[in-house]
Amino acid sequence: MSYRDGMSARVRSEERRAEIVRAALEVIAERGYRGASMAAIAERVGLTQQGLLHHFPTKDTLLVAVLEERDKWDAVPAGTWRLDLLASLVEYNAMRPGIVQTFSALLGESVTEGHPAREYFTERYGRVRESMAQVLRTEYGDRLPNGLTPERVAPLLIAVMDGLQYQWLLDPESVDMAGAFRDFVTLLGED
Amino acid sequence: MSYRDGMSARVRSEERRAEIVRAALEVIAERGYRGASMAAIAERVGLTQQGLLHHFPTKDTLLVAVLEERDKWDAVPAGTWRLDLLASLVEYNAMRPGIVQTFSALLGESVTEGHPAREYFTERYGRVRESMAQVLRTEYGDRLPNGLTPERVAPLLIAVMDGLQYQWLLDPESVDMAGAFRDFVTLLGED
Repeated sequence: MSYRDGMSARVRSEERRAEIVRAALEVIAERGYRGASMAAIAERVGLTQQGLLHHFPTKDTLLVAVLEERDKWDAVPAGTWRLDLLASLVEYNAMRPGIVQTFSALLGESVTEGHPAREYFTERYGRVRESMAQVLRTEYGDRLPNGLTPERVAPLLIAVMDGLQYQWLLDPESVDMAGAFRDFVTLLGED
Repeated sequence: MSYRDGMSARVRSEERRAEIVRAALEVIAERGYRGASMAAIAERVGLTQQGLLHHFPTKDTLLVAVLEERDKWDAVPAGTWRLDLLASLVEYNAMRPGIVQTFSALLGESVTEGHPAREYFTERYGRVRESMAQVLRTEYGDRLPNGLTPERVAPLLIAVMDGLQYQWLLDPESVDMAGAFRDFVTLLGED
């Protein structure tokens, strides 16, 4: 019996899901949100559409899995985020429009009633607000130069990143996303 | 011949379109983005769905018309916007989740390839960046206290408004949209 034969069905299924998520990310990067059809993703990973639907019953569930996977890759060990790393992340995002477009399109849909991505985003924003407050506290202490607390500034930091993505995706020639984010850091004031 | 009989077909058609847009706005306010189906909007305005499709061939074209109409209502005479008026607008938006949700959902979709609302948003952001730069120049002159120009800060101001809407729509209990926007104005510094 080979190693592979010995794997449990659960492990094989998880491995296959991970392959599908990687394939979806590739197709999104190449063809964008709309071009990344379930048919195209199934073909990339060598499955029938029926086979793909067995692992991910809808495109939205697959896209949420892609975004969760990106969160894992983008994660840095707790307490090690710094403002200048965030600026680098924005710079990096400006080189991967496919995934930024997927995030932004799905975030838009998620605010509608009963959307399958709503829970992912609600939970994610709660978590990210806490982690950004931590970043700001590490950088500035309990008050920023303007007197606001890290907890008050965290939602603004996130809002700027998200909002700039929309302006940049719509009109990349007119909007320098990374430069604008650095301007926001300037607004926060000198440490 | 009555006044009504004397109206040209074009005027009657424009009047009917305006009625439909108002009805759509009502249905959106009551039932949200997903609840505002073409069937529900047709019923509200006393048309068959076929009749509605004659004026607006898709839900997206109707929604863009609703957002254009809102832009007209929210508009203030050129050169009279002020930062404190913007803060009031955000406060007002916090009382009309239906239209904010429609704007946010459609903005999300618009960044995908070939979406019918893409042109509306791209054009709108170009215009709004100019008008916000004007607001900032009126308030601060050619440089803000932190040294940035009004043109550099304008995209951030808009990004914060848009980004806060997503966080607020997802979790209205945790996010005070109007308070957070006033915090952003604090970040801009004293005049």
